[in-house]
Amino acid sequence: MPQEFPASPLSPKKIAKPKQLGKLRLSALASGARYKGRDDVLLVALPKDSTVAGVFTQSKMPSAAVDLSKANLRAAKGRARAILVNAGNANAFTGKAGAQAAVVTAKAVAEKLGCKADEVLVASTGVIGEVLETAPILKALAKAEGKSDFQAAARAIMTTDTFPKLASATAKFGKETVTLTGIAKGSGMIAPDMATMLAFVFTDAALPSAVLQKLLSQANSASFNCVTVDSDTSTSDTCLLVALGEKKISGAAVKSTEDKRLIAFQKALSAVMQNLAQQVARDGEGITKLMTIDVAGAENDAAARRIGLAIGNSPLVKTAIAGADANWGRIVMAIGKSGEKAERDRLAISIGGIKVARSGKVVPGYQEAPVVRHMKGKEISIAVNVGANKGKIKGKGKARIWASDLTHGYISINADYRS
Amino acid sequence: MPQEFPASPLSPKKIAKPKQLGKLRLSALASGARYKGRDDVLLVALPKDSTVAGVFTQSKMPSAAVDLSKANLRAAKGRARAILVNAGNANAFTGKAGAQAAVVTAKAVAEKLGCKADEVLVASTGVIGEVLETAPILKALAKAEGKSDFQAAARAIMTTDTFPKLASATAKFGKETVTLTGIAKGSGMIAPDMATMLAFVFTDAALPSAVLQKLLSQANSASFNCVTVDSDTSTSDTCLLVALGEKKISGAAVKSTEDKRLIAFQKALSAVMQNLAQQVARDGEGITKLMTIDVAGAENDAAARRIGLAIGNSPLVKTAIAGADANWGRIVMAIGKSGEKAERDRLAISIGGIKVARSGKVVPGYQEAPVVRHMKGKEISIAVNVGANKGKIKGKGKARIWASDLTHGYISINADYRS
Repeated sequence: MPQEFPASPLSPKKIAKPKQLGKLRLSALASGARYKGRDDVLLVALPKDSTVAGVFTQSKMPSAAVDLSKANLRAAKGRARAILVNAGNANAFTGKAGAQAAVVTAKAVAEKLGCKADEVLVASTGVIGEVLETAPILKALAKAEGKSDFQAAARAIMTTDTFPKLASATAKFGKETVTLTGIAKGSGMIAPDMATMLAFVFTDAALPSAVLQKLLSQANSASFNCVTVDSDTSTSDTCLLVALGEKKISGAAVKSTEDKRLIAFQKALSAVMQNLAQQVARDGEGITKLMTIDVAGAENDAAARRIGLAIGNSPLVKTAIAGADANWGRIVMAIGKSGEKAERDRLAISIGGIKVARSGKVVPGYQEAPVVRHMKGKEISIAVNVGANKGKIKGKGKARIWASDLTHGYISINADYRS
Repeated sequence: MPQEFPASPLSPKKIAKPKQLGKLRLSALASGARYKGRDDVLLVALPKDSTVAGVFTQSKMPSAAVDLSKANLRAAKGRARAILVNAGNANAFTGKAGAQAAVVTAKAVAEKLGCKADEVLVASTGVIGEVLETAPILKALAKAEGKSDFQAAARAIMTTDTFPKLASATAKFGKETVTLTGIAKGSGMIAPDMATMLAFVFTDAALPSAVLQKLLSQANSASFNCVTVDSDTSTSDTCLLVALGEKKISGAAVKSTEDKRLIAFQKALSAVMQNLAQQVARDGEGITKLMTIDVAGAENDAAARRIGLAIGNSPLVKTAIAGADANWGRIVMAIGKSGEKAERDRLAISIGGIKVARSGKVVPGYQEAPVVRHMKGKEISIAVNVGANKGKIKGKGKARIWASDLTHGYISINADYRS
């Protein structure tokens, strides 16, 4: 049976009180299928005008839920009426029986809400290789009432998470002010590739699904795609952005993400998604310290991201951080192995704002003590400039990555616990 | 100061007695620069007719020793008269002062042996970011005598290694019988990319350096390039193959690796290099279990290798192995994240020879107990067929990977120890 773990030392002091979205109906339900005494199913009922965009795992072994949600998103042309989430069973690598189980749950939701089955999106996380039991979920669905409790919703989708993850923002949207509220889950098997474990962001704005999809992909590339716990990309990663269609923009219809009226909305969307992505890193399995890694001077933003992830995923960097060991040579190693353009003899590294190396060697008169002092804290900042600005390459690529450290806690959780 | 660690539980019961190579002169020396009471410098003096081939780290942050050895190998056109190795300082990321230090040591060797400076190859491993002190090395060199003790040589190049690594083989070579003997070191920061930390293989055969280079690259791709401890590629990886030129092949000169007279030699070279590569994995930092991962049914051999490494590098697979947890869903996840072609619904997995999954789901009537029994041992075998044989793809790609598990021992070593 799954175990309970003590709260992450980087969990927020207070769980955020999210801004409400009136037209959304949330039902957090207890199926009893895997966890006892807690909710493990979430049904989100969406109003009729909702549009939806999604990004999913790039894994070649996607779960049945990912397969079905991608198919339904295409079939319903970016419209959706419900999202059904279960925690504890990923329904991944379960063949036809697993695919059938996902369809059965979506159909049950469609019947309950009076919509089409392809207007229901599903998401499952938990153990891999076991077919989803549908009976407990169908039984739980009968009790769905439809409230607006985002905190209960965020708790119902947790697996090894030690705290629920929520974030909100508001933005000017033409003459209207719109709200964005999102929830996420994830703690291990976190190295999202196009999406994280699970994240759902809702807004009362009205936006066509094609525009919504682009906005989501853009915000995703600088949020969930920039967070790593253990370099292990999940089979179930799903991030959905839902526009409830309540508040229409003034003026002509929005046709492109270049539309200047979207700037405030984009900023708010990025803020909510980065906030949620960081919360996932802050709940990384066994975490004691959060790394924020800024990469500059790379060939382009994608190269900067890969360099940042090479640092954030390196077991030797992660253990040095855990041990407050100012062993910056391991950062050099990680940049070198990334395979991305980097000029050794121009490389500069700072830790906690203190210059450690520049021009390819340690700074003159380097003192380790203040760096160690910074590393004894819980929030570690690392900044590197890889100097890839030789000749034709401008080297303006940059990225920010959030990563957890690697500790005895991670080993304990994963050598003993069947996730 | 560096710490001593208990011997790996996967270390060989007896250190191999390597076959001697008469014309080689080995000097294991104590410089006292970093380690006390042990040899930490190795000088290998080579006979005049020696040819040499090398593969080096693909890191963008190569050490000064790697830079100098690559340059010297080119300048001397595949001839060499000496190899100088020091343990404890990688002389990496040390700018011009580090490059100069490497040159100073090579010159000192050239003077001592009466050869050209570019006929000296150098290799350094240990801490990154500190300029190599040359005085202790020059002082130690004065004591070089030139013996034939391969075990002492293998011990002199160790850093966090818990046992010396040696392997030998003989092979028919035309009418002659030739000997191959190699030594290697490495325990952490092991994910070789074209070479491992350090490995030196010597043979009394006579072979032109161009042929030697191809033989080395081929053998390397199925040995050192197939071993991983922690996915962290070193700045110092160097593997040299030296032909001492004593025993000439009967008949016409060898011009290509396709020459059928080389088949036995190639087999012996692969055996020695795979043996050494496995010993590196068996001494992986914190290891309790060795994984041997066989991948079949991939698009090609390179894809199979990347899938095998994705499994062997996955923290979630490694911790499951450490905990003897038959959580094969994590193997599915790792294959999925590799990015290589794989057909979920054809995937087959065996652990310890027991079929676990086939056709994209768990086998009917799967019993976990015998799998757990196998996983409680020290040698874990995993075999996967990724079924990438649809349409035009033949799916004949295969690879074998050796990897250590991920344990509390790895965390202890790397969160506290400045390597």
